[in-house]
Amino acid sequence: MRFFEKLERAARKNGSLLCVGLDPDPALMPVDDVAAFNRAIIGATSQYVCAYKPNLAFYEALGEKGYAALRETLAAIPPDIPVIGDGKRGDIGNTAKAYARALFDELGFDAVTVNPYLGGDAVEPFLEREDRAAFILCRTSNPGARDLQDLAVSDGGVSRPLFEVVAEAANRWDTRGNTGLVVGATYPDELRRVRQICPEMTFLVPGVGAQGGDLAAVMANGLDGKGGGLVINVSRQVLYASKDAGFAQAAGEAARRLRDEIEDERQQGA
Amino acid sequence: MRFFEKLERAARKNGSLLCVGLDPDPALMPVDDVAAFNRAIIGATSQYVCAYKPNLAFYEALGEKGYAALRETLAAIPPDIPVIGDGKRGDIGNTAKAYARALFDELGFDAVTVNPYLGGDAVEPFLEREDRAAFILCRTSNPGARDLQDLAVSDGGVSRPLFEVVAEAANRWDTRGNTGLVVGATYPDELRRVRQICPEMTFLVPGVGAQGGDLAAVMANGLDGKGGGLVINVSRQVLYASKDAGFAQAAGEAARRLRDEIEDERQQGA
Repeated sequence: MRFFEKLERAARKNGSLLCVGLDPDPALMPVDDVAAFNRAIIGATSQYVCAYKPNLAFYEALGEKGYAALRETLAAIPPDIPVIGDGKRGDIGNTAKAYARALFDELGFDAVTVNPYLGGDAVEPFLEREDRAAFILCRTSNPGARDLQDLAVSDGGVSRPLFEVVAEAANRWDTRGNTGLVVGATYPDELRRVRQICPEMTFLVPGVGAQGGDLAAVMANGLDGKGGGLVINVSRQVLYASKDAGFAQAAGEAARRLRDEIEDERQQGA
Repeated sequence: MRFFEKLERAARKNGSLLCVGLDPDPALMPVDDVAAFNRAIIGATSQYVCAYKPNLAFYEALGEKGYAALRETLAAIPPDIPVIGDGKRGDIGNTAKAYARALFDELGFDAVTVNPYLGGDAVEPFLEREDRAAFILCRTSNPGARDLQDLAVSDGGVSRPLFEVVAEAANRWDTRGNTGLVVGATYPDELRRVRQICPEMTFLVPGVGAQGGDLAAVMANGLDGKGGGLVINVSRQVLYASKDAGFAQAAGEAARRLRDEIEDERQQGA
């Protein structure tokens, strides 16, 4: 099944546009075992999400143990919930193909995040798998996003910020209908601009919760014409909802609450 | 010892600005065992290089076995040769810190490559280790580099390509003298411009060899005022110099020849 179809089915089944970011941080986790932690989180949240998104950095930081924990985590995710491998990879064609093998074939992710700085031929190896998808970084949620992404690019007398040029490039690169964008929740005006440029594309939106993004503003500015097209990622606010023995139940409650808040805003915006 | 000091010592000892990219590709390797292949390559080339650069994609594509092979490869590199972990990572601050732990602490790389698209706060976690270094992608060697990196950015009435803005940003971000740039060999004019902007910075230059970059043009346009400041990376032309049982000897010969060619051009350019 193609990624975006799998995503839509999970979103419909669970009535949810919430994605939980599985980013285990030993400094914040209430238990030591990463795989056990993630299994508990998944067990408590899987009925409230449309996707999971492990960020590879948190597993790589733990070496071999982290890789094993990632394998166990992926095995614990119900097969009808799509999984986005958040690695933000970007390299020249030959090397990007190796990354695509690593992420799609070796680890089995349904979709990935990719960095556009190297251009179309660095993105293409991730898009040529028609059943998978790639979310291209467009406007990220961090303060430094302004450094490059907001630079004014002039082209034929017209001046636009770089992230808008990336959104337009994504439209061109998307020859198979399997391209998405990463647009941070912390910049709702920019989100609205990207939605204008890509009216039918799905956006992966990090930055709600610990990073301070406002959910109502995200929904008001980001929904597509059909009242969808958003995957709202939350990590810390769910994973570390509680640090005591009831952490999984607290995570489940946090996920349910977020799902419901998103759904309320969605219905108001639709 | 700080990275750039270690690099300079290795370069002086071996009379070499050559870096060999350890990018094992099962489709091209004359033997099956990645670690054994790399050990043979390292044994045959270590007296002709100033650095090694494993590209992480080729190890990740092989799953657990690739990770183990990377560990064995790193253990086989003589301790006086610096190693650049080529992962082109880039993520928000909290996550970039986790990547820095993965690459510097867990794997022990002396330097890394990083992607600037997320801005200064995504680069900083790699630079705050004063004994390590980060090479920031500036102008890459692939055809798609033009898509974003050459876009005309206007700022206060002046218009410059994006890669020049990144070079200027690198000057600002380099508060500890441990920043380098990645500038592809395939675009000598752009290399000259970046050298003008960053007269004293060290450039990691991929693209000579299989990608078609011209060595003489690289040396003429890239050397700093002291006749150095370049790390010329070659991967396939060395690794796969021969596909028969004598592959390691052939790799050693190829590395020696490249080192000598680089040194000849360096002396002409200095």
